[in-house]
Amino acid sequence: MPKLILVRHGQSEWNEKNLFTGWVDVRLSAIGEKEAARAGQLLKEKNELPDVLYTSKLSRAIQTANIALSEADRLWIPVKRSWRLNERHYGALQGKDKAATLEEYGEEKFTTWRRSYDVPPPPIADDSEFSQKNDVRYGTVDPKVLPKTESLSLVIDRMLPYWQDVIAKDLLEGKTVMIAAHGNSLRGLVKYLEGISDADIAKLNIPTGIPLVFELDQELKPTKPSYYLDPEAAAAGAAAVAAQGKKK
Amino acid sequence: MPKLILVRHGQSEWNEKNLFTGWVDVRLSAIGEKEAARAGQLLKEKNELPDVLYTSKLSRAIQTANIALSEADRLWIPVKRSWRLNERHYGALQGKDKAATLEEYGEEKFTTWRRSYDVPPPPIADDSEFSQKNDVRYGTVDPKVLPKTESLSLVIDRMLPYWQDVIAKDLLEGKTVMIAAHGNSLRGLVKYLEGISDADIAKLNIPTGIPLVFELDQELKPTKPSYYLDPEAAAAGAAAVAAQGKKK
Repeated sequence: MPKLILVRHGQSEWNEKNLFTGWVDVRLSAIGEKEAARAGQLLKEKNELPDVLYTSKLSRAIQTANIALSEADRLWIPVKRSWRLNERHYGALQGKDKAATLEEYGEEKFTTWRRSYDVPPPPIADDSEFSQKNDVRYGTVDPKVLPKTESLSLVIDRMLPYWQDVIAKDLLEGKTVMIAAHGNSLRGLVKYLEGISDADIAKLNIPTGIPLVFELDQELKPTKPSYYLDPEAAAAGAAAVAAQGKKK
Repeated sequence: MPKLILVRHGQSEWNEKNLFTGWVDVRLSAIGEKEAARAGQLLKEKNELPDVLYTSKLSRAIQTANIALSEADRLWIPVKRSWRLNERHYGALQGKDKAATLEEYGEEKFTTWRRSYDVPPPPIADDSEFSQKNDVRYGTVDPKVLPKTESLSLVIDRMLPYWQDVIAKDLLEGKTVMIAAHGNSLRGLVKYLEGISDADIAKLNIPTGIPLVFELDQELKPTKPSYYLDPEAAAAGAAAVAAQGKKK
């Protein structure tokens, strides 16, 4: 039976500093590394062991996977990485302080960019120090498809082809697939899998570092509600993420 | 121009204890982790940055690569793993103390198994706690091709098809390929690339944690002598490996 395990990376150096991150390649903080280790311990304790790993091209997701798989004694599984699993591109907001951004643009725009389904922030300038225009890790990708800003809707548009063409294949072979990625690429995937509406997705908060498991049928539809490997910690974590969304 | 970077993993928990390891999946020691970090710093300092990574299926090589690529800011490159890059299978000697083995079998056999080109130790019993018979990481490999003991010659026999069919392809596309692996799988590859004789290969000692670079032509032949990214440390390291070989 195909099984999917989603792991959202833990705290990064910029979460700590309250900056918009998006595609900027910051590392996990010490707390984020601990969250990753805990994720791996849960995989091992609950015997939910992936056969194959997918990650984004961003270090914080890859670090999370490496640490978790080391704890779960699964370092040796095959790995595939794609920019299509990256965090939402935050456009011109990347690298900006969240409180300063709120002040600069006002509450309405700020909230719309953060929580609307399909309104992206202004695009990032190519000469911004936080642009990925010349980032070597995307050197083999057609520049025309690389985003300069994204809404959640646009994240789903670029993520789904990878799900459909690549990840689905491993699942349909009956493998247990783990995806180590980001708040918004994972929210987009959960929206798709669970048929959550454009309006309701704003309320979905995925906690960091707690594996979320989907059991799927041969059409890759969930056969039962998805579950976290540590439900209590997940509820507390989701509440913390929701509170962060309200923080100014 | 195709470029190949070989990295031998650093000290493992069993190197420390003077046990034969082979395919037993022990982890890096704290010293081994430091060696891996140093390897990554050298890649970064010398700007020898891989486009793609290959590893064995053994955790100590994968840990080495993960740590080194984190230091070199290359966590995001594609990765492929194969049992064909594993350390030499040490047969019935796996898990045994080296000094005790010397005493049990005598100097001649001991030296022959360690340093001859084509005499493997006795095969490991399927019910040995150090056998890989039921190791899930090899679950997708035809059991008939998985070794129960190996000489260096047999290591080369099972490693070369992977070199020729898979790794060569990336090199011929002009990529810089890094292989994180083991003393004997890397010695086998160097023997092949440099045309070292069966007799002379016993003298080749590859130091741990120091990247070894080959520049290759379009027939994947070296265009100049291979070089270590830290030649002084490499000379000292090779001498240490050689001394270890003589240690009883």
